Amino acid sequence: MAIRIDPWGYHAVEDYEKLMKEFGIQPIDDQLLPSHQLNHFYFTRRVIFGHRDLDRWLDMFLRGEKVAVLTGFMPSGYPHLGTAMVYEELKYFQQKGAFAKIAIADAEAYSVRRESREEVVQRGLDFIAHAIAWGINPEKAEFYFQTEMPSSYYRLIQMFSRKVSQAEVEAIYGDLAPAKIMAALTQVADILHLQLDEFGGYKYVVVPVGIDQDPHIRLARDLADRFEHELGFRRPSSLYHRLIRGLDGNKMSKSRPEYAIHLNEPLEIAEKKVMNALTGGRATAEEQKRLGGEPWKCTIFELYTYHLIKDDKYLEEIRQECISGKVLCGPCKRRAAEILKELLKLHQENLRSVLGEKLVEKIIRKPSF
Amino acid sequence: MAIRIDPWGYHAVEDYEKLMKEFGIQPIDDQLLPSHQLNHFYFTRRVIFGHRDLDRWLDMFLRGEKVAVLTGFMPSGYPHLGTAMVYEELKYFQQKGAFAKIAIADAEAYSVRRESREEVVQRGLDFIAHAIAWGINPEKAEFYFQTEMPSSYYRLIQMFSRKVSQAEVEAIYGDLAPAKIMAALTQVADILHLQLDEFGGYKYVVVPVGIDQDPHIRLARDLADRFEHELGFRRPSSLYHRLIRGLDGNKMSKSRPEYAIHLNEPLEIAEKKVMNALTGGRATAEEQKRLGGEPWKCTIFELYTYHLIKDDKYLEEIRQECISGKVLCGPCKRRAAEILKELLKLHQENLRSVLGEKLVEKIIRKPSF
Repeated sequence: MAIRIDPWGYHAVEDYEKLMKEFGIQPIDDQLLPSHQLNHFYFTRRVIFGHRDLDRWLDMFLRGEKVAVLTGFMPSGYPHLGTAMVYEELKYFQQKGAFAKIAIADAEAYSVRRESREEVVQRGLDFIAHAIAWGINPEKAEFYFQTEMPSSYYRLIQMFSRKVSQAEVEAIYGDLAPAKIMAALTQVADILHLQLDEFGGYKYVVVPVGIDQDPHIRLARDLADRFEHELGFRRPSSLYHRLIRGLDGNKMSKSRPEYAIHLNEPLEIAEKKVMNALTGGRATAEEQKRLGGEPWKCTIFELYTYHLIKDDKYLEEIRQECISGKVLCGPCKRRAAEILKELLKLHQENLRSVLGEKLVEKIIRKPSF
Repeated sequence: MAIRIDPWGYHAVEDYEKLMKEFGIQPIDDQLLPSHQLNHFYFTRRVIFGHRDLDRWLDMFLRGEKVAVLTGFMPSGYPHLGTAMVYEELKYFQQKGAFAKIAIADAEAYSVRRESREEVVQRGLDFIAHAIAWGINPEKAEFYFQTEMPSSYYRLIQMFSRKVSQAEVEAIYGDLAPAKIMAALTQVADILHLQLDEFGGYKYVVVPVGIDQDPHIRLARDLADRFEHELGFRRPSSLYHRLIRGLDGNKMSKSRPEYAIHLNEPLEIAEKKVMNALTGGRATAEEQKRLGGEPWKCTIFELYTYHLIKDDKYLEEIRQECISGKVLCGPCKRRAAEILKELLKLHQENLRSVLGEKLVEKIIRKPSF
């Protein structure tokens, strides 16, 4: 039986609980984990904190039905430790036996974000290379560029346009620009298309996302209902993970690269970023020894929780060392930097193999247009 | 030099002239016709009354550049004499040497009009069979269902969504429903896609339409400008024909089949419809003999003008017989009915050959979804 770890303290949790209540997201509860052997530390630590219909997906999985895990990447910027959380989830479910399907949202990158086409394609290929380097098995996965999909995928988008209202799109983007409508419906096609026989007939699909992507999940579930009769769609399941923060305590984002750890970051730069990160330390060493640190505020403790420490007991030890004031931020950061550098070094070695063996070119055709 | 015939009187023309001024449509003028040998009676009679950049298209044609004529059919209802006007225009330009490309707007029929999928596909195949029966040479033409197009066509739609505003779509449909936005952008893809090398690289395209379709042409021309740099698009040219009226004097429309002459109409039904049609006759025979008829109000005279009488001189004779009161409506209708039955009989024989030889199946794949 997995131990329930709460690395968050009560502070951050409240916000998520509010969101979950508001949108009807179910919590990851203690019953779900052992009955379905969800032993990844993302579950035990509630990095993945909520879901919609994950239990149904798991039941189908246990019954031997074909199941898939799906996600999409916006190919702009460089993959960072936030991206790697999704890689990690895909890898985990793939290892358990699910087929992994990964969309590169190049149409959306182009139409909504107005990135240059060449840049978007190259970034997409990078996201795929990093995914494989992270451990996603390309033989049990399919990667695709939206713009390379056959017409039946696009036909879905056209069909969806028939049963979606202006208000629904506006609720997602706060905006009704044609490009936004197109992007929203394209994301729904990503989520639902693999239920069609032509795309594998995976009727049970789980989509791991950050909570900020939930509006897309809701729209996809609604459209699945509306096309249940016509196309035999079922509601997709979803998983919600916390958003990793940047090293300044705000969101880790491609648009603020100085506060993100990129997977292709030179090790010494990664180290420097860690050493400058916002922690949960006190104003003075004396004070910290007396009061202890506040790991729930600390971006370094987040790195441990999300990526660096896989063993729950060890993570709890680190937390205790912090709140007891036994280990101060300096040595704690140095330890984090060392583990991070190891992780990045291994990943970057894997990446070099992937690139050297031209694995990406073997599994996906580069869009030409 | 072609004789300028004005079968319209001054009544109906005024409306069209207002439209042309408002939207900047150029008139078909007497210089254009002989210099480019536009000898079809649609031109001499001003059935085709206006254009945008037809002169540029014609110049390219004369220079030996690849040119195309393109249109789309909404596959609902049955092809009628209004549809046949477009067939006639395509046939004429094809015979002069242009490549003909014909879209079946099945995506739009499905998403905007909410017709059943099977019905839409069958209607689409009918429109193609009738087009060939009317004389369009399938060896110098390409027919396609929107939903069967490759992803690069759909990618265009996605790209267009980036450079179109809500206001522009609203101006076309008076509405911003996602389905309408999708339909508008899909029509623009129909109009522009064949400029891409993948689709033949036809840089000079003329689109014959009814004046009511001009908003789509304007949007396509604007988007061609906006993607000139990125995709090498040029503005499409367009031609505007008058809308044939139904036999009650209102628009001939698929939605009012009782007042339309369908191309697959049983001959005796067509005859009956003609005999019951609204004419430009007076209240009594005596009055008509004295004052003459009003051919510009007469739906039968429209049939002559659009389809039944190809010789301009003969048409002028008929007009004179009418306005002089020499021939009354009864015999005039009987003459129209006879010519119409001949025309339909020939067309329906052609149609049977087309169907017998399975010509449609040979040139187009039936959508499966």
